[in-house]
Formats: sequence, C-alpha cells, structure tokens
Amino acid sequence: MKIYCANIVYTPTPDSFQLIEHGYVAVSDEGYVEEVGKTLPSKYTSAQVLDYGDKLLIPSFFDMHVHAPQYRNMSLAMDEPLLPWLEKYTFPEESKYADSTYAERMYRRFVHALWLQGTTRCSVFGTIHLESTKLLADLFSEAGMGAYIGLVGMNRNCPDSLRNTEEEAVEDTISLATYLEQNPMVHAIVTPRFVPTCTPQLMRRLGQIAQEKKLPVQSHLSENQGEIAWVKELEPHVSCYGAAYDQYGLFGQTPTLMAHCCYTEGVEQELVKKNDVIVVHCPTSNVNLSSGIAPIRRFLDAGIRVMLGSDVSGGHHLSMSRVMQYAIQVSKLRHLYSQGKEHFLSLSEAFYLATKSGGSFFGKVGSFEQGYAFDALLIDDSSLDGQDYDLIHRIERYIYLGDDRHIEKRYCQGKELKEPCLK
Amino acid sequence: MKIYCANIVYTPTPDSFQLIEHGYVAVSDEGYVEEVGKTLPSKYTSAQVLDYGDKLLIPSFFDMHVHAPQYRNMSLAMDEPLLPWLEKYTFPEESKYADSTYAERMYRRFVHALWLQGTTRCSVFGTIHLESTKLLADLFSEAGMGAYIGLVGMNRNCPDSLRNTEEEAVEDTISLATYLEQNPMVHAIVTPRFVPTCTPQLMRRLGQIAQEKKLPVQSHLSENQGEIAWVKELEPHVSCYGAAYDQYGLFGQTPTLMAHCCYTEGVEQELVKKNDVIVVHCPTSNVNLSSGIAPIRRFLDAGIRVMLGSDVSGGHHLSMSRVMQYAIQVSKLRHLYSQGKEHFLSLSEAFYLATKSGGSFFGKVGSFEQGYAFDALLIDDSSLDGQDYDLIHRIERYIYLGDDRHIEKRYCQGKELKEPCLK
Repeated sequence: MKIYCANIVYTPTPDSFQLIEHGYVAVSDEGYVEEVGKTLPSKYTSAQVLDYGDKLLIPSFFDMHVHAPQYRNMSLAMDEPLLPWLEKYTFPEESKYADSTYAERMYRRFVHALWLQGTTRCSVFGTIHLESTKLLADLFSEAGMGAYIGLVGMNRNCPDSLRNTEEEAVEDTISLATYLEQNPMVHAIVTPRFVPTCTPQLMRRLGQIAQEKKLPVQSHLSENQGEIAWVKELEPHVSCYGAAYDQYGLFGQTPTLMAHCCYTEGVEQELVKKNDVIVVHCPTSNVNLSSGIAPIRRFLDAGIRVMLGSDVSGGHHLSMSRVMQYAIQVSKLRHLYSQGKEHFLSLSEAFYLATKSGGSFFGKVGSFEQGYAFDALLIDDSSLDGQDYDLIHRIERYIYLGDDRHIEKRYCQGKELKEPCLK
Repeated sequence: MKIYCANIVYTPTPDSFQLIEHGYVAVSDEGYVEEVGKTLPSKYTSAQVLDYGDKLLIPSFFDMHVHAPQYRNMSLAMDEPLLPWLEKYTFPEESKYADSTYAERMYRRFVHALWLQGTTRCSVFGTIHLESTKLLADLFSEAGMGAYIGLVGMNRNCPDSLRNTEEEAVEDTISLATYLEQNPMVHAIVTPRFVPTCTPQLMRRLGQIAQEKKLPVQSHLSENQGEIAWVKELEPHVSCYGAAYDQYGLFGQTPTLMAHCCYTEGVEQELVKKNDVIVVHCPTSNVNLSSGIAPIRRFLDAGIRVMLGSDVSGGHHLSMSRVMQYAIQVSKLRHLYSQGKEHFLSLSEAFYLATKSGGSFFGKVGSFEQGYAFDALLIDDSSLDGQDYDLIHRIERYIYLGDDRHIEKRYCQGKELKEPCLK
C-alpha cells in the first residue's frame, strides 16, 4: 500500500472536475486505487506516505490513435496534401521497418517520447512487419506501459514494399496475438489500415480473427471527402463507409476504435451508436491534413463514446495536452459556425476524453475512483506563476501552457515508470 | 565585425526559404548584416568567426500584438466567453498594474518569457498606468530588446479602475512619447484600446498626437461579430468599423497595426489597403475566443501587409512558433471550407509573416539581407532526431515540434541577449 498526498484532480464525469486540495490517493500493492479523499484515515497511518505538497496529481493520458512508425516523420512535410504526403514521406518511412535494427532504434525513441509526454497507455498502428511489431510490443513491456499493438493489414492500393498478402496479414495477426496472449499490459489489436487498402477477402478474414480470438479492432473512418468517395467506389453496395467494415465483422462486433469520423452522420452515426463503436477524435491531424472538424458535440449528445488520439504523424505532436487544446479550439470554430447551437467542449470534457474515456479501453483506468488502476502524473507547475490560482485554473494552465518539463513522475498500474532506455 | 557560421535559413520573399548550408552571416559592429553567403571571402579572415557547425541560424520573431499586463492570465479561463472573461479575469488583472511594484514583478516575467521564446521585438499594449508603462519600457531597454509600448486609452465602457479621463490618456501618451524620444530601441505607440472604450473626443485627440509626433498607432479591428455590431451602434454614420478610426486619423495616417480583422471585407478591406494599414493576424486568440478565422489569403492577394501576434492572453502562449503553426492550420480550414479556392498558408509564408514582415515595423529587421539589423536565433535541433533531413524539413520540425529549449542563443541588433533578470 502506498499513499500519495498532493492536490488531486480527475474527472469521474465529463461535466466537471473532481478537485481535492491537499488530498490523498491510497493505492494497493497491485496498483489499484483503494480510496481517495481529503483527510487521511487513521487506518493508513502505517502505510508508506509520499507527500508531494502543493503539486498536482492527475490521471495520465491515453493516446488512442497513433502510428508508431511515423514517429520520425512527426512535424514533417505538413504543407503536402494527403496523397503526396503518404507517397513521398509516410510510406517510404514505414517501409524501413522491414529492418528490425532500424525499427528498434526508432521504436525506442517513440516509446520514450510517449513516456515523456505522460501517455502511459495507447493504441498503436505498427507496420506490416511482424518482427518489428513484436519488438514494439516488447519495448512497451520493458517500459512498463500499456498498449494495444496492431500488425497492419494492407494488401491493395499501396506500394509493394508495404503490401502484405492476405495470407501474411492473417497469419501475422494471429502470430502477434499468440505472442501477446499472456502479456498482462500489452495486447494485440486487429488493424486493417482502412477500406481502400484492404480487399474484401482480407477484411472478412480479419473480422473472423477478431471474433474468434476476441480481439479488438482499430481502423480509420470518414476522415476526408476524397477518401469517402473512394470507399463508395470500392464498396458501392453498402449504405455508408462504416457499413463496409460492419459487413465483415470489423465494426463493434468486438471493441472497435475508429479514428477521425469527420464526416460521420446519418446512417453511419446510427451504426456507430448501435454497434457501440468508439470514435477516436484526432483534431491536430484533422487540421494539419485539411480533413475537417469532427462533430464531437453531436457524437457526445448521441451517447457515442469518444476518445482522443494524437494521430502522429498526421498530428504533429505526441502531447495529449496539445490534443486536448485543439479538441477544444476546433470545437469553438464549430460553435461559431453553428451560430452557437453546437456548444464547444469544456476543459473538463476534453480532460475526461483524454483520461477516463481513453483509459476505459483498458478496463477501469483513467480515473482515481475506487478500483481504478493507478495511472497518474505528478505535475509540478511551480514555474508557471500560478500558485495562488485555484486548482481548476492551475490544471488549465498546465494543459495550455505546460509541457513535459512539468511532469515530475509518471505511474502506470501503480508502478512509477522509469525513463525508458534509448540504447 | 563578427562572422556567424551555421546553416542559414531566412525568407527574403514569402514564397520560399533562402537556405544556405554551412553558410555565414557577416555582422558589422553596429549590428547590421554586411554580407551573407556560402563560402567566407578572404577579406573576413581577420574577423572574429563563431562557427556553430550544423546548427540553424534564423531571424528571430516579432510579436506584433500582445498585452503585457495579461501575462499572468495566459492560458487562464479559456472556457469563458469574451465578456465574462474580460470582466472576471482580464480587467481585474490589468487593474493591479496601478501598483508599480506588482507591475515590475510581472513585467520582468513577461520580458523574460518573450526572450525565452525568441521574440526579440514586439508591439505591446500596457495599461492606462503611466508609471507601470514607463517601467515596462525600461525593462525592454534593460534586456536589449526592441519594442513599441502603448499607454492604453480607454475612457468609456470599462470598469472605473481601468478608465482614464480623456485628459489623462492624452497627457500620459505624450509623457510616454517624450520619455522614450531618445531611446534607440524602445518607442511609444498611440494605443486607443478599441472604439467601444474610447469616446470620439479621445480618439480625435489621440489621432492628433499620432500625426503631430509622428507616432504609430495600434488597436483592435473587426475581431468578432458582437463587437462589430456594437461599433455600428456607437458610430452609426461611418461605412465600417475601420472608418471609425479613420475619421480620427488613427487608420494609416501614421504606421498602423490593427489586430484580428477576422471580418474585414468590402469597403473596410479597401480602406485597409488604401491607407496601408497593417493587419496583425492572431490565430491562437481567434480560436480561443471563438472569434473566427481571418481571411489572410485574401489580404495577401490584395497586397495588404500582414504580421503575426500572440495576443496573449486571448492567445494562450507567447511562442511565435505556435502562432505560425496555428496561422497555417486555421488557413487549412478556410482552404477546406472554400472548396480549395483559398489556398492555405505555406510554411515559408508563415515564417515570413513572423520574421521579415513583422520586423519591417522596426525598419530593416527580420531578414539576413544586406543592411538588415542582425536579429537572430541560433537553433540546436539535435534532439529532434532530424539531422539527416534537409534544411527545409529541419526548420519545419523545429517550428512544429521544437520549443524554447532548442533556442541556444538570441541576438537583437547584433548583440547577444543575456537572460533578462527576474529579480
């Protein structure tokens, strides 16, 4: 048992922060929150107490859509339109991951960068390369961090160097799942890149694997208009882009993350809701690639689950604080363009999406309520000149103004995360 | 004479970067660029050579709209709409600057923060308080940085604690101008806050001062729809918001900075162009306050001069790199909503706006062309994992991914800027 004393900030619900000035969180040896409160009960007096004084203790962040092999392309060639950007920068970089020496060097940096930014668990696209993808999983394990790792399936409309056959994609997805079967923190996730790069046969077989092995699914949905038109050509008989996944058992039959959803509405929104598909909102990527602004308020009002993703390297930065900022800021533009009808995201809503909502993909994670895994960040905001502000403004200023320098400690499942080795 | 050797990056024109791999800039003892090039001519062999190897040497940044007394409110209460935000947070904070002890403490932090972010010159709103505003000017002088400093005029529609009389505003503006008359780097700028807070009499007299003393002018223009409607009520006889300034000699009669201009079009755009008024684009503020997206491409196509501003604390951060990012990103949304008709800002355009365009308000500043004042930043991007990228991508990754940690040295008018004293 360990007791952490600090200013406690978390979001049991999206609509407001739970704030406990100079409170405590009691964490079991297994890494779960036993109790959170203001005054330490006497039963804990024999426990180890770590008093962090006036610092902030918050849940850590969960990045639910990120491409690990695009780490080195982060913030690169942002002026290019989507297709040249993919062809000239993204695909050539991903091809390098056939070489597992290169993969190890870069994936170590990727995991280190996530750690630095306070992301303790995430859902990741790897590449088509099994060895590199297993290595990525190993590095998350080594770091003590949680992850869903995707072996990418793509067997059409892509360069030869990044194309796997249907058979390879299926076998390697199964191999990865088997490899990670006993891993407590790192799991496999079925990952068809997106409809245009996957034949119907491949999608059908990936859907079967997901259901047989009870594996979750991640992919891209309705990111931009050109892509939607392309899917309509490829799958002319279905009612919407999402239905193209649905027919193959890749749309909520097991827990499913769909990134972007900028243009999801009508029948597609109904299908998302009906199948309890999770929308992963990637606002930095959506502005960088001129994709649009996803209608997050509408999704939330409809009771659709929403999480946040950095979508590096469509997104330019791994910081989930920045993703929160952009989620709020682009929602303010939707607010404006809807003549105020569509209310913008509040700070607590954005925080909830990045913590408790994202964390829920891993079980009871992302909050300090009883029974939750203790995934947390200790924030020292003393250099931000805000000590006499109230807690809610201190957390706001950390999110908008702070950076990795203000994260003093990172915890995942109750364990403090050491700085991952870069080799 | 000093010779700086490094990778040289600057923008003589907006449409592309001038890139000199392992080049040099020769700077005279007075702080002006004598020559820039690839191979050091023999005539310079006796000069002091500072070889910065593979680092980047770029012009420093110019923040052309920022409220110094809102420093401590940076990133605060971003969920509040404009009016409560002003009433509950901004005005109470500005009122504190009646106390020059408080002002000194905070203004030191403000100047330090600008230095940290690589902004070497700026145009600043102070408050109505003469002593504090003179102190702010002194701190810029002490730091060796350049600035235009505005004593704010506001004599209606504001709290009593922030209201000066017409007489006070006029006298204090003149006092500040006299105080700074001989200062080589820090100057006065006539600063009516905006039309709603200034009576016609005050604006007329401020316009007279500007023209008699040849002082530039700064204010706010067409930031949001509510404000525009309010100005229409207050000044029903003029053709547009800008004309309300124009009739009093505050709209280009001397060099004039108008912040925001989100809704400037038609007759107002023509007047801006005709009077050579400068638009200061504040994209972070415009999203945070749900103001809108200024039509920068349209302004540039019309030959209107545009500069960039952080507009702290409507903007949440002083980093001009971030302001550049947002300038590009919001222009991508306009690009999207115009069905591609309005092309988004390129990286070199955004860089030009933050360097050579902003710098031009101070004379020949913001470029490395011959005769320009040497205002520069030495960037060490070695921690960004991009050494084998070409220069254009290294500068892009510094702008999107880097921060103050990557700025190794700062120069203003040829002098290296020491870290300003925080006391």
